[in-house]
Amino acid sequence: MTLVTDATEADMRRRILVVAERLFREIGYQKTTVADIAKLLQMSPANVYRFFDSKKAIHKGVARHLMGEVEQAAETIARAPGSARQRLCDLLTTVHRMNCERYIGDAKLHEMVAIAMEENWDVCIAHMELVTGTIGEVIAQGVESGEFEVSDVPQAASCTCAAMVRFFHPQMIAQSFTKDRPTLEQMIDFVLTALGAKKRAPSSP
Amino acid sequence: MTLVTDATEADMRRRILVVAERLFREIGYQKTTVADIAKLLQMSPANVYRFFDSKKAIHKGVARHLMGEVEQAAETIARAPGSARQRLCDLLTTVHRMNCERYIGDAKLHEMVAIAMEENWDVCIAHMELVTGTIGEVIAQGVESGEFEVSDVPQAASCTCAAMVRFFHPQMIAQSFTKDRPTLEQMIDFVLTALGAKKRAPSSP
Repeated sequence: MTLVTDATEADMRRRILVVAERLFREIGYQKTTVADIAKLLQMSPANVYRFFDSKKAIHKGVARHLMGEVEQAAETIARAPGSARQRLCDLLTTVHRMNCERYIGDAKLHEMVAIAMEENWDVCIAHMELVTGTIGEVIAQGVESGEFEVSDVPQAASCTCAAMVRFFHPQMIAQSFTKDRPTLEQMIDFVLTALGAKKRAPSSP
Repeated sequence: MTLVTDATEADMRRRILVVAERLFREIGYQKTTVADIAKLLQMSPANVYRFFDSKKAIHKGVARHLMGEVEQAAETIARAPGSARQRLCDLLTTVHRMNCERYIGDAKLHEMVAIAMEENWDVCIAHMELVTGTIGEVIAQGVESGEFEVSDVPQAASCTCAAMVRFFHPQMIAQSFTKDRPTLEQMIDFVLTALGAKKRAPSSP
């Protein structure tokens, strides 16, 4: 019985989050009410509150989900075959692209991110730590294989993330739209050099 | 006569900006009116409008002044004696410290920055380009002296600035207060490695 109840509860939470995300995207976070979410699910607001004790908690769940997709994509790349160098490039590019798609040119999602950063900063911190951890995994593999030369992997991973802020952070991505330099590729090359990676095309002086 | 008139006009503009900056700091940008500024200068608002055609233009002048001080400090360091490595460290540290002092823990100045980024984005862009240019000068000197190994100096300068965004950008500095990693020193070391600088304390394995 407990297992079934757990499954039902997890399923209900998931359904609420799916509907909430849809409404946040369609009419915006501020304008969406718990009553709107309940109505679409054909249940009472009181029933929604059994699973999430506030709209803020629902927002947190939706934010976790959106960020979770990025985390999963990063992990999939980290565990794929290939050189550490190539996987690090793919990972950094993917996080940038996913954040661009999600948060740029979509004012409603942008509002959600701004609110997440104000109200659910812990979710953002956890997300950054997870992505930093995954980057650290790839760096460690690169050190192991002799591709990178790094003495402190966690430190190198946090510097890599910080160096990529302009390409990762929703607000920075939005502001950088007017700047054409550096390009993502140039920035990744810069980071690779900082990680002690050998140049792709060594120049003979 | 023209010279005297020019001097008087420049002097008047400067006086208006000094008073405006004081009021923006004391009561905030939104609450300050052109009438407030005129009153403190014992002149009519119409007279202020002879020198600046809007409050926005005054704001721009104040923002330019605040950013100009950082640019000057950076240039002074760039032209000082010493190794390029040391000057780059000093320059990056100084820009970080000055931006921390200016924009963090001072809600009124923070408001001004937010408005500058919305209304006078061109001033911000020009500031970033100037600081990037000064960083490029130091990098070029380091390449010249054999301290750095960089093939494209302007690109390396823009990557250095982008890598430091977390420590330079007022919004990022404010958000990073909860994060203890990477430290400024770790980030500068990371950048130095990306610029091909030799390690300070080479570790013998």
